[in-house]
Amino acid sequence: MPVDPPREHTKPERVHAPSLVLLNTGHGKGKSTAAFGTAMRALARGWRVGVVQFIKSGTWRTGESKVLADLGADFFEVGDGFTWLSEDMSETQAIALAGWEAAKERIASGDYDVLVLDEITYVVNWGWLDVEEVVETIESRPEHVHLILTGRDADPRLVEVADTVTRMEKVKHAYDRGVHARRGIDF
Amino acid sequence: MPVDPPREHTKPERVHAPSLVLLNTGHGKGKSTAAFGTAMRALARGWRVGVVQFIKSGTWRTGESKVLADLGADFFEVGDGFTWLSEDMSETQAIALAGWEAAKERIASGDYDVLVLDEITYVVNWGWLDVEEVVETIESRPEHVHLILTGRDADPRLVEVADTVTRMEKVKHAYDRGVHARRGIDF
Repeated sequence: MPVDPPREHTKPERVHAPSLVLLNTGHGKGKSTAAFGTAMRALARGWRVGVVQFIKSGTWRTGESKVLADLGADFFEVGDGFTWLSEDMSETQAIALAGWEAAKERIASGDYDVLVLDEITYVVNWGWLDVEEVVETIESRPEHVHLILTGRDADPRLVEVADTVTRMEKVKHAYDRGVHARRGIDF
Repeated sequence: MPVDPPREHTKPERVHAPSLVLLNTGHGKGKSTAAFGTAMRALARGWRVGVVQFIKSGTWRTGESKVLADLGADFFEVGDGFTWLSEDMSETQAIALAGWEAAKERIASGDYDVLVLDEITYVVNWGWLDVEEVVETIESRPEHVHLILTGRDADPRLVEVADTVTRMEKVKHAYDRGVHARRGIDF
């Protein structure tokens, strides 16, 4: 049944927030892609944007990396690739933690208006990084620094500290019927 | 409790699909932003990308429009702005339907590798456009044309015809505590 288009729009009382923490979680597509879209929007406004990729690397997402870098974003691919391709998990873990140290420095520096911490939830979920350290870093950041966190199964403490949380749920996925990831559309 | 990183990755049998239909729905953020991120990725691959915006226009999303246009996307803002700002709903409806005619032509032309039909669900949900006409246009498209549809409350027929469907759910939103949309982050 058709519904009526909205003809009224009420706004809550305005609250001042110098910057926001966005969190894209869930098992569906679009978590990183939406984060990169937001980064693209910020770049269009002349903002300084950095991206730290904790897990994925290599050929994956090279399309986005290239465009965002061309638009002026600093792109830090600290990840060691998919964990199922890792030959040395202690090395993979060490690389992810080195990424976190780099991310912490960049947050604290105040040199960025937006920092994307892509796939950071996994580093927490796998027990490699204490969530309280992440929360403390977020809460003590320079007040103009917007953060965008992505990854499945975000720790409840990350949900708590974020201003806006979206859960991307898979309703259906071409992959489940055997259509593999496609260059240009999926990466 | 920490979980183990995945160490295996099984793939279903490969199926050939010349193009995909992606649908981003739900009441959370990121539907259009993820679509635009995918468009950006396709542009990075040298694909021909078009975007038809059915509802929003004006200052909203100008950041994305500008970047995507700069990257080479054709951007068609057919929308008449937020419905709650419309002074003449019959005109708003006529504009949205003209947008659909333009979209249909562009799909059928085969001139694009990816077409984003942004906010198209509303044109269906408000009874302005028959969902079966949309489904028929999707099913009879040139086989290389990927489509990305966005908008809340997608009609079940659109879910059916899409290959990959993601529902963006709002877990929480800064707006609900009075933090208004912010230039650079939200538009």
